[in-house]
Amino acid sequence: MSVLALSGGIGGAKLALGLYRVLPSEALTVVANTGDDFEHLGLSISPDIDTLLYTLAGIDNPDTGWGRSGETWTFMAALESLGGETWFKLGDGDLATHIERTRRLAAGESLSQIIGDFCRQLGITARILPMSDDPVRTRLRTEEGWLDFQDYFVRRRSAPVVRDIVYASAAEASANPDFLAALAADDLEIVVICPSNPFLSIDPILALPGVRDGLRACRAPVVAVSPIIGGKAVKGPTAKIMTELGLAIGAAAVARHYADILDVYVADEADRDEVAELGIPVRLSRTLMLTLHDREALARVVLTSAGRGF
Amino acid sequence: MSVLALSGGIGGAKLALGLYRVLPSEALTVVANTGDDFEHLGLSISPDIDTLLYTLAGIDNPDTGWGRSGETWTFMAALESLGGETWFKLGDGDLATHIERTRRLAAGESLSQIIGDFCRQLGITARILPMSDDPVRTRLRTEEGWLDFQDYFVRRRSAPVVRDIVYASAAEASANPDFLAALAADDLEIVVICPSNPFLSIDPILALPGVRDGLRACRAPVVAVSPIIGGKAVKGPTAKIMTELGLAIGAAAVARHYADILDVYVADEADRDEVAELGIPVRLSRTLMLTLHDREALARVVLTSAGRGF
Repeated sequence: MSVLALSGGIGGAKLALGLYRVLPSEALTVVANTGDDFEHLGLSISPDIDTLLYTLAGIDNPDTGWGRSGETWTFMAALESLGGETWFKLGDGDLATHIERTRRLAAGESLSQIIGDFCRQLGITARILPMSDDPVRTRLRTEEGWLDFQDYFVRRRSAPVVRDIVYASAAEASANPDFLAALAADDLEIVVICPSNPFLSIDPILALPGVRDGLRACRAPVVAVSPIIGGKAVKGPTAKIMTELGLAIGAAAVARHYADILDVYVADEADRDEVAELGIPVRLSRTLMLTLHDREALARVVLTSAGRGF
Repeated sequence: MSVLALSGGIGGAKLALGLYRVLPSEALTVVANTGDDFEHLGLSISPDIDTLLYTLAGIDNPDTGWGRSGETWTFMAALESLGGETWFKLGDGDLATHIERTRRLAAGESLSQIIGDFCRQLGITARILPMSDDPVRTRLRTEEGWLDFQDYFVRRRSAPVVRDIVYASAAEASANPDFLAALAADDLEIVVICPSNPFLSIDPILALPGVRDGLRACRAPVVAVSPIIGGKAVKGPTAKIMTELGLAIGAAAVARHYADILDVYVADEADRDEVAELGIPVRLSRTLMLTLHDREALARVVLTSAGRGF
């Protein structure tokens, strides 16, 4: 029995943790967006993968929602004293992940191999798969010109008005073969699209060759969880970007965005009216995940939403 | 008026700090050994330069004798949890120096440019010059085979018996042109060979093309400070290596080692008999530098040892 989850960073990782905790050991495979990955200070940084690693390992920082627990910031202070770039915050412990990843990539290992080993080292029994071992980079055309994702999201705090989004090199990249194999596997019970930003976290995954076809062809139902609650994004620039791209903001619009691959939609009770006429099965639930119990409860709702027994 | 000091790490940096404090602003140029430099975890690390930077900036760690004050170790703990290599201790603040240096080297800047900027950022008004911008690597032939310097010194804690020492690529490297220019300058008042390990810290500098000739030709006296006190090295493997190389251990042997370039020798009072018949002027002093006052006092002894007025 296997469960496949597609996830971005923080919001997706919350549900991924819920799934990880309620599923049998080794049943869960999480495919992580790498469109946010970038090179900074000479280091290869994979924000969504690392959020998943830290969250599933139980070493995430509950105060910030990102980074590691027990983090220290001596590096950033020293970097500032040397006149270095400090707009992207790198914690001292977090640096170990980036330095070790960068070293091993330079030594010829694939990102998948490295993250698989990090999972083992951190005692994670789920699989975390980078969506691809080839670089795919989310770029945004804004009213101020083209911006790399982290430039837009962190340095500019999502302020520039977005006109277009591209996933550079996605068409030439190969989807992670373990991801495609998991999609085609006989024991796949369900595919979960986590409540991540559709444009910034999930679409980069769907843009890879073979992924949409694999999702349409797979035997298991594809269930998406709305990242919108009561018409608002829980976190991040989802609603802002939807407005700027001329899309209706709301839970229904996200479901329609996934229309060609979606079998079941899990939406928040607050959006009951909004999703009443989607034309696919809808499961209403509380979707805000504040506590560990919330994460597990939503995971159970998702897993049973398509009528499969778990 | 200018003063040129040749230095390795800890012992040399103590005297360099004394010189820095007693000399007028901008009078001091310290040429740092880079034979200990190495690449580790993908980072370019320059131990002797960094010890000089931290010491002259007043941010050195007085407890360990190396690294930065107020250092934290979150990175090392996280690296260990990922299965990374932990035999070389990198503090969180220290990492900023290595990451920023590595980034700027990759961007095409020379080590000299980078260290010059680090000095400005840290408010250091002395010049710290890497002996060369070309890589020179101290390697040791031991009874266990050839070892890179840090492998020998840190990983193996100087345990293997040393049979030979080479400064790989020194003959093909260019000495720092600012170093050679300082040697040839009319206003050079004195050249100080700091109490560093002759074989591991000073000889790599002397092995660069033009350096020995420049020292012999320069108008200023060359004064070396003994790294030996009462027949023992203050710190590190100097005495052990001298024995293994078949050299007499002692203050006189070090002076003879520098015979072709030396004008004055500053030795510890404890070695009075040992250095009595060297054939060059000797100045006896207390040379152990425990306090800041010790560093300044020894600096004054050195500066006046050749009869010049400071």
